[in-house]
Amino acid sequence: MFTAMTFQDNHLRLIDQRHLPHQEVWVQAEHLHQIAEAIENMTVRGAPAIATAAAFALVLDAQQAKAKAWADYAADFDRNCERLHATRPTAVNLANALRSVKALAAKFAPQQTMQVTVEKLLTFAKELEHADLTTCRAIGQHGAAAQQGQKLRVMTHCNTGSLATAGYGTALGVIRALHSEGRVEHVYVDETRPYLQGSRLTAFELQAEGIPYSIQTDSAAAYLMRYEHVDFVVVGADRIAANGDTANKVGTYSLAIVAKHHGVPFYVAAPLSTFDLKTPDGEAIPIEMRSPLEVTQHAGHAVAPYGADARNPSFDVTPAELIAGIITEHGVIRPPFTESIRKLFTKMKSES
Amino acid sequence: MFTAMTFQDNHLRLIDQRHLPHQEVWVQAEHLHQIAEAIENMTVRGAPAIATAAAFALVLDAQQAKAKAWADYAADFDRNCERLHATRPTAVNLANALRSVKALAAKFAPQQTMQVTVEKLLTFAKELEHADLTTCRAIGQHGAAAQQGQKLRVMTHCNTGSLATAGYGTALGVIRALHSEGRVEHVYVDETRPYLQGSRLTAFELQAEGIPYSIQTDSAAAYLMRYEHVDFVVVGADRIAANGDTANKVGTYSLAIVAKHHGVPFYVAAPLSTFDLKTPDGEAIPIEMRSPLEVTQHAGHAVAPYGADARNPSFDVTPAELIAGIITEHGVIRPPFTESIRKLFTKMKSES
Repeated sequence: MFTAMTFQDNHLRLIDQRHLPHQEVWVQAEHLHQIAEAIENMTVRGAPAIATAAAFALVLDAQQAKAKAWADYAADFDRNCERLHATRPTAVNLANALRSVKALAAKFAPQQTMQVTVEKLLTFAKELEHADLTTCRAIGQHGAAAQQGQKLRVMTHCNTGSLATAGYGTALGVIRALHSEGRVEHVYVDETRPYLQGSRLTAFELQAEGIPYSIQTDSAAAYLMRYEHVDFVVVGADRIAANGDTANKVGTYSLAIVAKHHGVPFYVAAPLSTFDLKTPDGEAIPIEMRSPLEVTQHAGHAVAPYGADARNPSFDVTPAELIAGIITEHGVIRPPFTESIRKLFTKMKSES
Repeated sequence: MFTAMTFQDNHLRLIDQRHLPHQEVWVQAEHLHQIAEAIENMTVRGAPAIATAAAFALVLDAQQAKAKAWADYAADFDRNCERLHATRPTAVNLANALRSVKALAAKFAPQQTMQVTVEKLLTFAKELEHADLTTCRAIGQHGAAAQQGQKLRVMTHCNTGSLATAGYGTALGVIRALHSEGRVEHVYVDETRPYLQGSRLTAFELQAEGIPYSIQTDSAAAYLMRYEHVDFVVVGADRIAANGDTANKVGTYSLAIVAKHHGVPFYVAAPLSTFDLKTPDGEAIPIEMRSPLEVTQHAGHAVAPYGADARNPSFDVTPAELIAGIITEHGVIRPPFTESIRKLFTKMKSES
């Protein structure tokens, strides 16, 4: 299993995912602004991985602060949180992590020396990283248990593996867990235009694990569902609204419609940190629009006429009614989602 | 309007569509085998254009024959037809053109000198080219007349324009006709992976005509139908079965499902030569599988791990029930297609 991110004393070491699978370029980020840019330009990507990288970015900046007391640093800290929050608007894990660390700092930091506070921030980041791994393994177990059959043919979109998380993965965690039980016959990987996270990253991870797979263009998924058998689809999520509407990499919505048309169950795999109960439904989720050049150029070569415009939403929203189940670290949530999500979070709150 | 193919005395001049839009590379094909290869490697593409190119290929070979009498050449001619027929199995215009030219030769050639026969083959090819242009203009007129509204937002897939036909285009002919009436507000162009006929070729043609457009990744079409208004979808066809099931560039089926889901009418635009009444339904249409490298490489650069497999169907089949109408040079055919197609062809036969 690939570890895409390692924190060392004074820097965060990140694999530049834009160069995978053919080049392993590692970036040594020593400053918060470098990590913010790495998130924006997709050196690091995947909703859980982004949240962890941001938590380490806050540590680095606090380590470098000249302030002796929190009072002299608190404004910088808030600005840092805002800067990181602005990097990518759709994924909510980042916003959730930032809210938690701000709450922690507000409660703790004013009474402590900066040194202790830095340690506390580091512990937070490391725990976030560790929790992500534990969470993904639990998602994998629940997802595998939810599937019947010994030889499954699975389809997935984008990359949700050890590159997108602190390790193991969400949707790819389910596939990994099934594979460890010898139950994966074939994985159909959407190439996932425009960024090709499927062919570049998911294929890379599946190949490393020896899991049988093939790639298809995103629009060939419908052909494969019709002419080859697909047992279920599983994808990750960047934000899940209170009613179960799910924002994920663009193309997920299309895949969900196509799965519905063929009667193929469509699952979302995501940790509870991906839920945003303050967002009532998909309409309220902001969708990041990215540069047309991601569509009209490839590796610096134009593949469209000069000056061609492109609509390039980075995400889309899959309405809850197209989703068979949401696989979390606490089990699989089933429709009706508004009620089952509320019930799960109420239970979590009463237990914590 | 771009002329992608010109026959001159002893060669066929073809634009190499693989290098568009940024390079205009012209190929001078002097021998039949060069044209067969140009069809296979997609130097020339588009169901109607392939048929015309093949007809000219037969002319070139007959011109070069040493035989003095048809009897000494007939076997070569049959072999040539077979060679051309094998280039691409899905599009039926090619097969229909070859069947017509064989019937013509069988009836005519044995009584004539080779010189006269060559002239006859040339006339056939030129008439095919001319008829294609007339047909496309008629398709454009019928397609435009079938749409209500003065400011239409249209979505299309692949390239069906003057590059894919002898000129004007089928689905793009409908868009061209609407534009000439000032009725096109916006064209949404699927980039059309893996070969990018949308971003490379359709965008090139729309830009040349000054028709407003933007490109999207194929899987973003669903997002755009949901969040921006799309009035109708129009695509071309490579083969239409007797029941209206339509084979077209891979991704068409996915787009049709997505259009249905959003209540957006989905039209096919194709000449009668694209119909294959001997094919009862889509299940009987052979689907060409192309090299995985078209998916896993881009312009010679690998975009997937070495050795990655890909499923690369070049076409898919859109079932008739997802189609609102088939726009032909004789008007728009509406469901139930089996009956309306039979009726139209019976009428055509009785008139001819």
